[in-house]
Amino acid sequence: MPSTDEFTGWIGLDAKSVEGNLVKSTFQPKIFTDDDIDIRITHCGMCASDLHTLRSGWGPTTYPVVVGHEIVGIVTRKGKNVTQLEIGDRVGVGAQVQSCLKDDCYECTHDNEPYCTEGVYTYNSTFANGDLSYGGYALQGRYPASFAFKIPDALPSEIAAPMMCGGITVYSPLKRNGAGPGKTVGIVGIGGLGHFGLLFAKALGSDKVYAISRSKAKEADVLAMGAEGIIATKEPGWSQTWSRKFDLIVSTANNADMPLKDYLSILKPGGRFVQVGLPEEPLPQVQIGPFIMLNAGLLGSLLGSRSEITEMLELSAARGIKSWVKTYPMEEVNKVLALMEDGKAQYRFVLSN
Amino acid sequence: MPSTDEFTGWIGLDAKSVEGNLVKSTFQPKIFTDDDIDIRITHCGMCASDLHTLRSGWGPTTYPVVVGHEIVGIVTRKGKNVTQLEIGDRVGVGAQVQSCLKDDCYECTHDNEPYCTEGVYTYNSTFANGDLSYGGYALQGRYPASFAFKIPDALPSEIAAPMMCGGITVYSPLKRNGAGPGKTVGIVGIGGLGHFGLLFAKALGSDKVYAISRSKAKEADVLAMGAEGIIATKEPGWSQTWSRKFDLIVSTANNADMPLKDYLSILKPGGRFVQVGLPEEPLPQVQIGPFIMLNAGLLGSLLGSRSEITEMLELSAARGIKSWVKTYPMEEVNKVLALMEDGKAQYRFVLSN
Repeated sequence: MPSTDEFTGWIGLDAKSVEGNLVKSTFQPKIFTDDDIDIRITHCGMCASDLHTLRSGWGPTTYPVVVGHEIVGIVTRKGKNVTQLEIGDRVGVGAQVQSCLKDDCYECTHDNEPYCTEGVYTYNSTFANGDLSYGGYALQGRYPASFAFKIPDALPSEIAAPMMCGGITVYSPLKRNGAGPGKTVGIVGIGGLGHFGLLFAKALGSDKVYAISRSKAKEADVLAMGAEGIIATKEPGWSQTWSRKFDLIVSTANNADMPLKDYLSILKPGGRFVQVGLPEEPLPQVQIGPFIMLNAGLLGSLLGSRSEITEMLELSAARGIKSWVKTYPMEEVNKVLALMEDGKAQYRFVLSN
Repeated sequence: MPSTDEFTGWIGLDAKSVEGNLVKSTFQPKIFTDDDIDIRITHCGMCASDLHTLRSGWGPTTYPVVVGHEIVGIVTRKGKNVTQLEIGDRVGVGAQVQSCLKDDCYECTHDNEPYCTEGVYTYNSTFANGDLSYGGYALQGRYPASFAFKIPDALPSEIAAPMMCGGITVYSPLKRNGAGPGKTVGIVGIGGLGHFGLLFAKALGSDKVYAISRSKAKEADVLAMGAEGIIATKEPGWSQTWSRKFDLIVSTANNADMPLKDYLSILKPGGRFVQVGLPEEPLPQVQIGPFIMLNAGLLGSLLGSRSEITEMLELSAARGIKSWVKTYPMEEVNKVLALMEDGKAQYRFVLSN
């Protein structure tokens, strides 16, 4: 049973809302509990997931929906059990807002909250009590404090916001698979997620970081992001040139029609290919031989743990990492949705109130 | 250019040799170098690879061929560069007999000799100088000393022999992927490799070890090998019962027609499925979703490094690990080949001279 409080947001009423038809209106957030906070939303990054959900692209969406899960805001109210945050704190909220956090949950006790079977996503999801979750294209938000993260002072809000989903989605697999000194890392797909991949792979101390893309159109950008270079997969022989050079590849591509066999062939023995983009189609069919002959691994990864989010924010503050963002007033969200649908997001749009 | 020395072995002359038509005759081993040893072969385990190669099942074989790569023998001659072995030492030789071992080789300097691009296999392969390699269905063998391993005194030769390929093939992925205290490990396929999987997973200290097979026909055996139990994949609902229970699964299955999606679903988040059996067909086509939602990994693994072989032999001696073998005189090799073709190898046949 939701609360009778009224928050204001930009609401999707049906699958056509993705075409720039969000309606500014009120919605009733979850019931306020002793473990929750309310925030005044100042910023929200725009993620491809928002569009997938608005158009029911990943299955039927529960409308009305308020999307947005790269949220930064100021705490305006807190439940009595909330000790780690104060009114006035600046916090970030990402794509997950709840997991069971029980002492006997393998996932929650092993730094694996995104994989908890009782996980709740920030929007188009249902809390344990049955209330719907609502995202950050809004003026206010209500979330469990356990999934709200204090933003370090040195990190501007528009820089921090897109890290809450786009950033952590690549940070976690980079960290878990050893990106760091002595390592050569490749990032497939240079969009919102991919640009974070380059920034974080460098920040973690990787020796060499390369962008991997169809063409070299974004070469100047990836060099400016700190990468050593860009590899164009439309050029014949690229995978021979780069054979056995990579310790780790993180793929943000959303298209299942990928040269997976070539990607595996550019791994060093023992190397890992981690897919974080979620194509709707099956992967290309592969032989097991290339995996065996290279001790190679194909992995998937979803978001990141709470401790990894904290770590990512602290690293970003310490190193002065700057997300490449373009900021628009949230009032213009319908215009910006249209830009995203046109593939013009380079690299992350952030809405601000 | 091979030497003019004559060794005696059981030789396959064509693809029909797999049907029990090996011919006892002489062959000319590689030229003897300062880095080589000669051994008097006392034991040789029989590996499925031997049959694949005899029948040209993995591509055309170079006949005449002497198969066998689970070799134990006594050093009878050594080159002047060989300092780590003495005449009279009892040594094991596995499926790989050479890698470049150069200081600038990533593989050879990172405990990854099986993945060295200059690797030479024990039979049906060619040394850098052009000489052919010959396996262990023979009275004598000549191999680079760098890939011969002293067998600990406590380990009987017929126990050690099948570890040299069958054992290390599962030991390496178990070790590399964390089999040990606190872990639950599954072994798919309970044949020669699989039985080593159960023995080594227990020896490494894994909390719980389960065999995973079509049926429970081998239940008594796997319990005697130390496993907690056997999971039958022909029983409906088995993967729901075991959902998210395994840290690591090593699959020795040779058949690509496997319930891969079910195997992934019984991994814990962050779990790994390592395939060591090499089916000739492509894997079943998979969605990336299950990998992402479980942070799961599909890996391949080939043999093991030199340090892992040494470690495996020492662990086996220290723990008194016993391969389940049945020993036959090598003179009866053609009879035993026929038993293997009938699928009667439970769990490893060893030939002895």
